[in-house]
Amino acid sequence: MRRVAAAGYGLTKFRKNDDSLYSVASESMRDLFNNVNKLSQNDIDAVLVSTCDNAQYTASILSEMFGIKPKIAHRIENMCNSGSNAIISAYSYIAAGLCDVAMVVGVEKANSPSAKLEWDLTRGPFKHPAHWAAMFSKAHMDEYGTTEEQLALVSVKNRKNAAMNPSAYFQKKVSVDDVLKSKPIVKPVKLYDCSAPCDGAASILLVAEERVKEFTDQPVWVTGIGQRTMCASFSNVKELTRMDSTILAARDAYAMAKIKPIMIDIAEVHDAFTICEILAYEDLGFVEKGHGGRFAESIDSASVNVNTRGGLIGAGHPIGATGVAQAAEVVMQMQNKAGKRQVKNYKNGLIHNLSAAATSATVVTMGV
Amino acid sequence: MRRVAAAGYGLTKFRKNDDSLYSVASESMRDLFNNVNKLSQNDIDAVLVSTCDNAQYTASILSEMFGIKPKIAHRIENMCNSGSNAIISAYSYIAAGLCDVAMVVGVEKANSPSAKLEWDLTRGPFKHPAHWAAMFSKAHMDEYGTTEEQLALVSVKNRKNAAMNPSAYFQKKVSVDDVLKSKPIVKPVKLYDCSAPCDGAASILLVAEERVKEFTDQPVWVTGIGQRTMCASFSNVKELTRMDSTILAARDAYAMAKIKPIMIDIAEVHDAFTICEILAYEDLGFVEKGHGGRFAESIDSASVNVNTRGGLIGAGHPIGATGVAQAAEVVMQMQNKAGKRQVKNYKNGLIHNLSAAATSATVVTMGV
Repeated sequence: MRRVAAAGYGLTKFRKNDDSLYSVASESMRDLFNNVNKLSQNDIDAVLVSTCDNAQYTASILSEMFGIKPKIAHRIENMCNSGSNAIISAYSYIAAGLCDVAMVVGVEKANSPSAKLEWDLTRGPFKHPAHWAAMFSKAHMDEYGTTEEQLALVSVKNRKNAAMNPSAYFQKKVSVDDVLKSKPIVKPVKLYDCSAPCDGAASILLVAEERVKEFTDQPVWVTGIGQRTMCASFSNVKELTRMDSTILAARDAYAMAKIKPIMIDIAEVHDAFTICEILAYEDLGFVEKGHGGRFAESIDSASVNVNTRGGLIGAGHPIGATGVAQAAEVVMQMQNKAGKRQVKNYKNGLIHNLSAAATSATVVTMGV
Repeated sequence: MRRVAAAGYGLTKFRKNDDSLYSVASESMRDLFNNVNKLSQNDIDAVLVSTCDNAQYTASILSEMFGIKPKIAHRIENMCNSGSNAIISAYSYIAAGLCDVAMVVGVEKANSPSAKLEWDLTRGPFKHPAHWAAMFSKAHMDEYGTTEEQLALVSVKNRKNAAMNPSAYFQKKVSVDDVLKSKPIVKPVKLYDCSAPCDGAASILLVAEERVKEFTDQPVWVTGIGQRTMCASFSNVKELTRMDSTILAARDAYAMAKIKPIMIDIAEVHDAFTICEILAYEDLGFVEKGHGGRFAESIDSASVNVNTRGGLIGAGHPIGATGVAQAAEVVMQMQNKAGKRQVKNYKNGLIHNLSAAATSATVVTMGV
């Protein structure tokens, strides 16, 4: 099987305004063309668009807007992990030999139809994701003594990182006290425990081994892939103190990459809420089950750098764009282009992308 | 690269009623489980759903409904060729080694948001696909002397075939006179020149070479794949007497399969309108450019059997299901399960699936 590498990325500022879905998407595509300056439209033989927006034929429309005539073009949706699904699709097309150069574009507007889980009748009137986050938080506090302060530390770190990321929606640091005193949403979840829907797009370019040198001398290889869907509705989520989808996806990704969790230097984890990052520390194997809260206290001295772009809490959560933006961050870090937030001494990166109360998860490892 | 085969299929009756998208989709999945009786939920490691419907998280929801916990699950949309995009995605995942057994489910309700081309502002008020079909028809008549009677023959054949297909939306034969006297839509396109949106679903099971014997002793191999997007808007369609997307997709599919057009025994072509089938005869290489009309007159003596299930005109066009239903027909024929319409002496089959005035096309060849 031939290997696949990311050659470059494109990003937009995450924001809320009146720009159309197509404007936002094309901003990130233009940025990618600027970043990978040897890339021409004729090189691109797949355009995969990740979005939960209802717009039809988006991949073909965006291709036309850029004068690309790809072999493969379609839209991919699986709620919040649409972006990582699109990346893995692009990987597969290239690995299977159906194309050489694939552009993955993730895009969303803040008013995305996926912001509420309207389809899940098992949630009764509790359609907003904050409800399940509250149950996960409470269960972890009860079982392992995790505190609201430890949860708040996730938000403090991610908002601090976001302040060093010009693309991030939030640009201001917050303190533990700010988080604890922020607006109560669903006890114990407060406003600053939550990510915010916003407008944004991210693109990455995946290229077959044989051609990657045409576009970059800093390829970032896709080394491991794991995915798992456990269920869709919240009534079928049996465990509130772990994310089985993540545990299984991580197991497969590490096995494929032949690495262990301790070897991960850069991790973009799916902090839709602070509790998700605590659970991710544990379920990705960075710490033992139950130790996530304490890990949050000492994360500055950990060997893994988590959510350097600010995560979903700091950078914002344009749903279909998130998984692609996570991958773009790992590529940016591994190409030494991350500016103030640049990580040193890295070899392995990871993205972790969830949907709908962790009913499904993606883990992708990347390396140099 | 390991080979990929279709092991079986599932279908619904194409109809219009109040059944939900999930009911319709699950009917075809249940039919697939019945047809491939050694298949259990635990075997399935990818569920890809093709639909233009706005429903979110469909692949995960359908997985849950059937007790499947797949690695890969997402929804795919690219208008009318969504189905073939999903099939090629499943092929890629298997060929790339990320999964072994993939279920592809295509489903649509008649009121699909993709039935009109609302996004194409270059069409002015002429959003209904019948407008471009009229222009294609007129251009072919002017350039090559194709007649309304020849166009009508496509409808007559496909409605005749549909009458032998219990799943087809239309069950009554029509005569050339019926077609010519049917309701004028956009000159020269009449009602019986058109396919009809309807409700319906189709599923196919794709399996890696190493495991296909577990499920069938009649594997139907995916032998060739070609896809091309030329543009999205009608203003960028430069040629009205040929479908460049189809020509390029067919070239790639034949090259990959190492076969020539003359070797195709069974072809499911995208007859959204009668003119599309005439163009397909030419652009898939069954006859020379311009001879499509005459080919329609003598098709009963041709070596290729075209649209044995009735095509989109006879079977109906549940948009996201169509590409999958085309593949299901080829598999059904090659497994000798097509009843009254069973073809004899076959080796190579083909599906041809278009979107939006042939701005994009898919060609997949399959063989035994």
